[in-house]
Amino acid sequence: MYEKRRKVTLLTKKYRAGRKWLKLHPPQVLALGFITLFIAGGFLLWLPVSTTRHISFLDAFFTATSASTITGLNVVDIGSTYTLFGQIVIMCLIQIGGLGFMTFAVFTVMILGRKIGLRQRLLIQEALNQPNVGGIVRLVKVLIIFSLFIELAATVLLSMDWVPKFGLLKGFYYSLFHVVSAFNNAGFSLWPNSLSDYVGDPVVNIIITVLITTGGLGFIVLVDIWYSKQFRDLTLHSKLMITGTLVISVISMLFFFLFEYGNPGTIGGLSLTDKLIASYFQGVSPRTAGFNTIDFSHIHEGTALIIMLQMFIGAGSGSTGSGIKVTTFLVILLAVMSFIRGKDQTVVFNRSIKSSTIMRSIAIVVISLTTVFVAVLILTVTEHASFFTVLFEAVSAFGTAGVTMGLTDHLSTAGRFIIIFLMFLGRVGPLTLAFSLSAPKKSNIRFPSGDVFTG
Amino acid sequence: MYEKRRKVTLLTKKYRAGRKWLKLHPPQVLALGFITLFIAGGFLLWLPVSTTRHISFLDAFFTATSASTITGLNVVDIGSTYTLFGQIVIMCLIQIGGLGFMTFAVFTVMILGRKIGLRQRLLIQEALNQPNVGGIVRLVKVLIIFSLFIELAATVLLSMDWVPKFGLLKGFYYSLFHVVSAFNNAGFSLWPNSLSDYVGDPVVNIIITVLITTGGLGFIVLVDIWYSKQFRDLTLHSKLMITGTLVISVISMLFFFLFEYGNPGTIGGLSLTDKLIASYFQGVSPRTAGFNTIDFSHIHEGTALIIMLQMFIGAGSGSTGSGIKVTTFLVILLAVMSFIRGKDQTVVFNRSIKSSTIMRSIAIVVISLTTVFVAVLILTVTEHASFFTVLFEAVSAFGTAGVTMGLTDHLSTAGRFIIIFLMFLGRVGPLTLAFSLSAPKKSNIRFPSGDVFTG
Ligand SMILES: [K+]
Ligand SMILES: [K+]
Repeated sequence: MYEKRRKVTLLTKKYRAGRKWLKLHPPQVLALGFITLFIAGGFLLWLPVSTTRHISFLDAFFTATSASTITGLNVVDIGSTYTLFGQIVIMCLIQIGGLGFMTFAVFTVMILGRKIGLRQRLLIQEALNQPNVGGIVRLVKVLIIFSLFIELAATVLLSMDWVPKFGLLKGFYYSLFHVVSAFNNAGFSLWPNSLSDYVGDPVVNIIITVLITTGGLGFIVLVDIWYSKQFRDLTLHSKLMITGTLVISVISMLFFFLFEYGNPGTIGGLSLTDKLIASYFQGVSPRTAGFNTIDFSHIHEGTALIIMLQMFIGAGSGSTGSGIKVTTFLVILLAVMSFIRGKDQTVVFNRSIKSSTIMRSIAIVVISLTTVFVAVLILTVTEHASFFTVLFEAVSAFGTAGVTMGLTDHLSTAGRFIIIFLMFLGRVGPLTLAFSLSAPKKSNIRFPSGDVFTG
Repeated sequence: MYEKRRKVTLLTKKYRAGRKWLKLHPPQVLALGFITLFIAGGFLLWLPVSTTRHISFLDAFFTATSASTITGLNVVDIGSTYTLFGQIVIMCLIQIGGLGFMTFAVFTVMILGRKIGLRQRLLIQEALNQPNVGGIVRLVKVLIIFSLFIELAATVLLSMDWVPKFGLLKGFYYSLFHVVSAFNNAGFSLWPNSLSDYVGDPVVNIIITVLITTGGLGFIVLVDIWYSKQFRDLTLHSKLMITGTLVISVISMLFFFLFEYGNPGTIGGLSLTDKLIASYFQGVSPRTAGFNTIDFSHIHEGTALIIMLQMFIGAGSGSTGSGIKVTTFLVILLAVMSFIRGKDQTVVFNRSIKSSTIMRSIAIVVISLTTVFVAVLILTVTEHASFFTVLFEAVSAFGTAGVTMGLTDHLSTAGRFIIIFLMFLGRVGPLTLAFSLSAPKKSNIRFPSGDVFTG
């Protein structure tokens, strides 16, 4: 990491000498790119051709931000407010935001037939949180082809359920929209009650959750899985991501089932099978995707607490999810456990975790907690709502999770700006930080050290 | 620290060989001591001679726990429920809990004229969170004399205000009770509305806040101040404690003043001078003492958030306050700031902070956050109250701060047990952890390293 930074700094300096506009660092370009996307998307969605009724620019801007940052919080109903054109704009924003702004920049360069430059490589490297400059172009090609293939396959599968229900065109279009939304962990739905009509539908539940989980693991893990024959061949990062995702999801399911079992507002009235399916779906989705098959305004506070923790943890590095990231959470947990046991290094899967990685994880968590605390503090002044729904909304926006207990519809203008800012920070922040945070090398390592990507 | 632990382990082993009852480690003895105090105090307060009306054993036990852990949360009104005898029992529990269970054990040994043994020294060392075994006896003598002197002086000063108001005996007794309660950061008051009648009284406000701050700095800092001629002579720990306490208090005052300025339920109806005095008091007291001069059930949610942060941070190591401790908070903050700036060590006041200290701080925070999270999760099931008051109550109990937004009176039986457990863990936990947590030595230190006590 340290050497990478040095290399990057040297290269940046070299470039700077040559060209003026290169004064911006990669994370700054990334942030500017997102802001451009918000504004361009906002204008497109504000056009009369995009909407069925007049909406304010702030509403359109909110939708564009929510789509670009793949959050899924909405101040207007997507299905009834936006025309087909508007919905396709949203789908494009989700795809750009999800597959990665930088990945698409390269893709454009490749299409134009121009050789990929170092600057572009650095930007993608930043976006994917990858430590090595080499192999990036190949990785990008693989992930784009891979992603589009998965999305296409899933759309076909989902169409087999929805075409008979809605007819050929509508059935296919609805499938495509929800698949793109699920794989990119956006959580946008064309139905105002999200996927609540499919609470007990096994096909929809399985396809959507598989897409969510795949997208949430992160491309690095997916590529790693693709080239590995068995679990032990995987990198430490992939092992942690897979184990972590599994454990967190299962724990969430159990808590959801226990807390909501008798709740008539959620799954209390369902059959045992549907209760289990709903718990499974809500154990996977709220963490980062934000689809829901039950009404979140009636969930138990205990469930909401667990979901908030999930949203704060989020998904994987370089994935379509945000949050502090599963590995960041695990690294801190493992480090604390090792410390309590009196060990002088943190070892997992026979690899020690660098103390610089631990420190980096802590920095990410501290900055994230501070951000959410300050945002909630301001929201308690600007909003007239219960503290709990405000806290839930802020965590959901920062983790770009997108589930809500109902506050989004009632946000004040100031509140909307804070939520927009949280979505932006949540999506760009950890990546931006990843670059800004330095990580000095340690000398006295006994175990061979494995790379873990945090934030 | 490491060597200390080795020494302790060796000595413990030596003692174990000789005597069976020495199988318990110091933190375990400390915890057992507290539990004994809870039960003994509970029984004493349950006696008919202690109360003006019949109360349940759980109520008496709750009061005893709250007094011994110097928390200040109460399910019954102290002034009207307990007789003079009962109140004196409470005052003794506060004094024992505040000056330290272990300090008193040694004190007893000294009174009995027996030479102080190594085992006792280890116990006090644990209680005071002191890394050196040597000098403990002298330190204990100094702190007890010092504490009693301060309490006596403050009682005389406060009597000058209250004797004219309540008559000689009552005035003196009320002064003594509130001075003991303030210096030990217990927050117990003989009035049901705490010190609300003195919201604008400068004498009461100054005496009480000076006692709170003095007690909250910790004896180590007080002794250090006593022997130092100027700020630069102080240890790094003392410098951090003094600066941290000052900054946190001032920020809290500002926020309190801003958030509550126009709130008719708190300071909205007061004169500007009284508003400032009330903000000053509430900026100092809720962090650990728990006295209040305004009604906390009407505070703004923003104020409550700031107060929760204060309560979680708490006071100093080896002080009469609890929480994660000011230094723990500062160490993490400084470490994160250094990391973001790309520095490979955390330097403050020309001293670097050991990475083992940073790791220890993180362990304390993670364990504390987890404890509060789990407690709140259970309380959302057992209590029928708003999430915010539940969260506030749990943080207040864990930080043994003792302010409440009104939940204590309405706690269910299960809820009472959880709050009792939180008070116990909050008071014993960080000390117990301090001993259990190991801290390996680092070799590559460039700056001379300064000791910082965290937790
Ligand atoms: K989402
Ligand atoms: K207290």
